[in-house]
Amino acid sequence: MGIVVDIDKQRSDKPSLDDLTAIVDADMAAVNALIIKRMESPVALIPQLAGHVVAAGGKRLRPMLTLAAAKLCGYEGERHVTLATCIEFIHTATLLHDDVVDESALRRGVDSANAVWGNQASVLVGDFLFSRSFELMVEDGSVEVMGILSSASARLAEGEVMQLLTANDTDTGETEYLEVIAAKTAQLFAAACRLGAVVAERPKVEAEALDAFGMNLGITFQLIDDVLDYSAKQAELGKEVGDDFRDGKITLPVILAYRRGDDDERAFWNRTLGELEQKDGDLEHAFGLLQKHGAMDDTVDRARHYGAIARDSLGIFPNGVVKDALVDLIDFCIDRPY
Amino acid sequence: MGIVVDIDKQRSDKPSLDDLTAIVDADMAAVNALIIKRMESPVALIPQLAGHVVAAGGKRLRPMLTLAAAKLCGYEGERHVTLATCIEFIHTATLLHDDVVDESALRRGVDSANAVWGNQASVLVGDFLFSRSFELMVEDGSVEVMGILSSASARLAEGEVMQLLTANDTDTGETEYLEVIAAKTAQLFAAACRLGAVVAERPKVEAEALDAFGMNLGITFQLIDDVLDYSAKQAELGKEVGDDFRDGKITLPVILAYRRGDDDERAFWNRTLGELEQKDGDLEHAFGLLQKHGAMDDTVDRARHYGAIARDSLGIFPNGVVKDALVDLIDFCIDRPY
Repeated sequence: MGIVVDIDKQRSDKPSLDDLTAIVDADMAAVNALIIKRMESPVALIPQLAGHVVAAGGKRLRPMLTLAAAKLCGYEGERHVTLATCIEFIHTATLLHDDVVDESALRRGVDSANAVWGNQASVLVGDFLFSRSFELMVEDGSVEVMGILSSASARLAEGEVMQLLTANDTDTGETEYLEVIAAKTAQLFAAACRLGAVVAERPKVEAEALDAFGMNLGITFQLIDDVLDYSAKQAELGKEVGDDFRDGKITLPVILAYRRGDDDERAFWNRTLGELEQKDGDLEHAFGLLQKHGAMDDTVDRARHYGAIARDSLGIFPNGVVKDALVDLIDFCIDRPY
Repeated sequence: MGIVVDIDKQRSDKPSLDDLTAIVDADMAAVNALIIKRMESPVALIPQLAGHVVAAGGKRLRPMLTLAAAKLCGYEGERHVTLATCIEFIHTATLLHDDVVDESALRRGVDSANAVWGNQASVLVGDFLFSRSFELMVEDGSVEVMGILSSASARLAEGEVMQLLTANDTDTGETEYLEVIAAKTAQLFAAACRLGAVVAERPKVEAEALDAFGMNLGITFQLIDDVLDYSAKQAELGKEVGDDFRDGKITLPVILAYRRGDDDERAFWNRTLGELEQKDGDLEHAFGLLQKHGAMDDTVDRARHYGAIARDSLGIFPNGVVKDALVDLIDFCIDRPY
């Protein structure tokens, strides 16, 4: 498929997904068609509910990574479309189960599936999408691919359980938090990228490089996501600000502020996040403490560090529009408005 | 592995699992060891919670089917142990998610995992076991096996969603109910049995025969399970009688009684199961209506019908202790005390 990118245009100061989107445009249309086709079921509720989550959609970052990584590796077949769809199904299943776990009423600014259809249907349709993802892999037929995705899925579930265990635990340290986000978020990014090298049958060194790119990009992405939860306007982000605070999730901004704070401040965090005893004004007070200790800016700095590792991971690949677009993606993840 | 079965003993009148248990005894020990080994995780809660469900255990019917089917097909390798473990992991994952969906406080007479650790952990550890099951399949390496189990899992999830949709719907008919239990219960029985022929590399006709055996045995099993929920003493069954009634599940005994009842009786079912408006004495009244219309006995008759099909499915296999034990299993499923 042809790639239409205006390489003569001035690179603007503001990083965007435009080049990456253009590069994977035709493939992404094929992924979207396959998603619709393979969420079908004689049980009408399944495509209804799954369609709701897929339509809420977001940026489709993960399948985009598989498509772009395959392009970076010079792949010219069609398997990457199937594998990108697998990735999105696993991600969608996780979102459905996450919303049940978090008891979320909104996802990206629209009613979450569990709010509309109930927790029960969300759990079961998540299971369906997860199974369907494995059916797609089986159709693709590569045991190596199935190994990558089944291990990533198990690790993802471990990360979600770890996150559950660190919730409300203000003793959680930065190292532990990094383990959680590496497992629950970055592992699927890493697998999505690795698949690009695997379908293109590139040497192991390229598969490892793309895995490292995805892992570090995923950590970058999650760190910024955690910053955004304490700062972006809901309208911009399409989700409720303060979700993590209300859920008592211990994210890096809080970990930094807690460690830099005095006894009174720690008592505040222990009450609000540890005991989940929250009252009006607490979220605003949390904003203030995070700002006071530079916890937001420093979390962004940490994100930049992992972003730099992601960028260097791509060093072994030839320069060109695809690599440039992936680097733009790192910058885009970091410079999302907060 | 040697099979120690006393073939000279008089076959007692009461069907039991004793012969089947003896036949798969050594293999089942290997399955139990593999279950323990592969539910390990650095996240300690995962083996704790999964171990709780596995220990509550039950009869391990499904993995037993894979082991026995492999023996029936003359298989002498070790792959059936791995695949039986996959089956049990999928089943355990389903139990965890079922209990969340049903909001059950007890499972087989002990506290359900969600009652002890919460719905959130149950959802996520279920996801972990499901992923771990796919990892095990990948290690086994057969794309055919992965196809069978991924399709069975997707069908299982569809069945669970169908069950959710027919809950509280007293218009549900017998055909629709059969579709639900074929998908949610019998499909995994069918896959468990089919795998025996697949590992033994037997001809397709034997794989189909074992699939049919499992499918019809699974339907038989579920029909009797639904009868037991309205009749067995809690202590014998190890679970609360009346669960299905309290959840408003529409099972065959109710479907028969509803259709055979008068307007007053239908109003009773619509109130208690349709609207879930239940008061003291309702369950006992339901018992009475089911007895009055012979709905329990006739459901058992229906179960015998599918049991007969299961028995005939085994016709192409040579007679012997394994086949006898599988036939005993059908009778055992039907003649459980109710």
